[in-house]
Amino acid sequence: MRLADVGESGLVERLLGRLARGPGVVRGAGDDAAVLDLGGKELLLFTVDTLVEEVHFSRAYGSMRDLGAKAMAVNLSDVAAMGGRPVYAVVSLAAPAETAVADIDDLYAGLAGTAARYGVTLVGGDTVRHPHGLVITVALLGLAGRERVLYRKGAVSGDLFYVTGSLGASAAGLFLFQNPHPACPPEVEDRLKKAHLSPEPRVVAGGLLAASGVVSAAEDISDGLALTVAHICTAGGVGARLLADRVPLSPEVRRLGILTGKDPLEWALFGGEDYELLFTVRPGAAAGLEREMAAAGWPVTWIGEVLGPGEGLWLEDAAGAGRPLVPGGYDAFGTEP
Amino acid sequence: MRLADVGESGLVERLLGRLARGPGVVRGAGDDAAVLDLGGKELLLFTVDTLVEEVHFSRAYGSMRDLGAKAMAVNLSDVAAMGGRPVYAVVSLAAPAETAVADIDDLYAGLAGTAARYGVTLVGGDTVRHPHGLVITVALLGLAGRERVLYRKGAVSGDLFYVTGSLGASAAGLFLFQNPHPACPPEVEDRLKKAHLSPEPRVVAGGLLAASGVVSAAEDISDGLALTVAHICTAGGVGARLLADRVPLSPEVRRLGILTGKDPLEWALFGGEDYELLFTVRPGAAAGLEREMAAAGWPVTWIGEVLGPGEGLWLEDAAGAGRPLVPGGYDAFGTEP
Repeated sequence: MRLADVGESGLVERLLGRLARGPGVVRGAGDDAAVLDLGGKELLLFTVDTLVEEVHFSRAYGSMRDLGAKAMAVNLSDVAAMGGRPVYAVVSLAAPAETAVADIDDLYAGLAGTAARYGVTLVGGDTVRHPHGLVITVALLGLAGRERVLYRKGAVSGDLFYVTGSLGASAAGLFLFQNPHPACPPEVEDRLKKAHLSPEPRVVAGGLLAASGVVSAAEDISDGLALTVAHICTAGGVGARLLADRVPLSPEVRRLGILTGKDPLEWALFGGEDYELLFTVRPGAAAGLEREMAAAGWPVTWIGEVLGPGEGLWLEDAAGAGRPLVPGGYDAFGTEP
Repeated sequence: MRLADVGESGLVERLLGRLARGPGVVRGAGDDAAVLDLGGKELLLFTVDTLVEEVHFSRAYGSMRDLGAKAMAVNLSDVAAMGGRPVYAVVSLAAPAETAVADIDDLYAGLAGTAARYGVTLVGGDTVRHPHGLVITVALLGLAGRERVLYRKGAVSGDLFYVTGSLGASAAGLFLFQNPHPACPPEVEDRLKKAHLSPEPRVVAGGLLAASGVVSAAEDISDGLALTVAHICTAGGVGARLLADRVPLSPEVRRLGILTGKDPLEWALFGGEDYELLFTVRPGAAAGLEREMAAAGWPVTWIGEVLGPGEGLWLEDAAGAGRPLVPGGYDAFGTEP
């Protein structure tokens, strides 16, 4: 049996068994970051993510500075999703010996720049040789109030699903990189490609959501909305009903859909790398939270509701017709990147 | 200019500038691990290391379990060198989709087994696809008493150099993998190859050295004794005089030297991956520390002395003749692995 046969989720399942419960482990695997109790005032969040050339990125699409910024952002997003405040990062870079030093300087400028913008100090790392392409690994520490950590688990029947920002732009941008479209207006192309190359982690929004005290579950949307909904439902043992016409799509995403004849909702549901936050809220507190988030400059959108155990995952169109929501997001070991 | 032109140390120099001094950073780059102050009773150590297939290891030489154990051990060694107690690790694995799942299971068994033996809890990780070979990254957290962290910096003229264990066996083992020697006795071959495949991090010894209060500087010997001495001398702004015939070599290392006509001291000086500790001690306290370490089951060997600033690095033979000690250890971006 090969990794391609079990897939990323199958592999993660197998490896979870290896993750011993140890002293001070509040939460080991299964969330965006591990949650550790070192006895201090706050809990410690610990996460790691790796980007591989020609799997997660192509140097043909963006600058090395963009790439560094994104490598940092995907980790910041993990801490953001748990309501934490990122604090320290280490970076491990594997690169071919023939890599230009100027490219590595730019990569680190991107890593350090994004780190600094979010209050993170780069405290070290490792640089090694790799015969084939770049591999960038960032490990990140965050802090979170003891009663304020957001987990994937916690959604209960009747809670409402919300997302920050809008979805699908990163996947639409990747589509444009792979399928240049001469009729696409430059400002649409720029925005979509930028969404793919330079995602912004929702660190501030995640902190506000955690502080609200009314969010029952959260996760960042790294592999498409459908898979993220499935994660939260599996973790909470619940179902979901998403409303297709409530899923927020930017004007550029809609525009590219019209230009290409593609359904833009597919980019939101099954694309990836939006790095917005999906979360669930107790119904009585939803309107208040919506107002607070909008007032703080982080508008959130209601996109569905949590169903009971065994009620499945459903996507409902504007006419009220439902079809099963099949989580078909990105799989790390699928045959296509 | 390519990475091969500046080399690993040149690259590290360039990147150090990127490592901002931030709140709570007691020590950023330039040591085996970053040292962070989160306000708790102890300081936090944070380190990351990556092993790349066909650069740092060959699957032809050892089992996947050995490989996992070694990937964990090299990180444990970084925390050991600073006198810390390793506590939590995350692992990021990049692997081809056609990798056998059984191999990954074995790799994680090695990672988890070594982690558990040293009191470390594996709390999470990331698994991604790589088109070419395995890349294993471990990020590790450790704790250390506020006044008990060992740094590379701190050696002063007159201090004595010591090492734990014996040196050169890992490089001799690698030599045997690459140059099979029919006349080498199986027990010699086994011990040397095992030293290469399964190094033991000196976590207990490092803790004892830190607790002694008389160690002025320390580092693990990952890239040969000569380079490690050079690091400690650069960090402290001092020189060194090593006594060639004091460098501890195991009987197996000496035996392979005789069999192959090679100088076994070269494996100790310029080989790598012994993961013993090099440290300096105030001269008045050296004899006492030597006795204490021997009594605790961690014998240490005096191998030289710290010279003053500008006095250079010297290797002295038994007859008292000195020659310059040129740090020629492993460089990650050299043209040969």
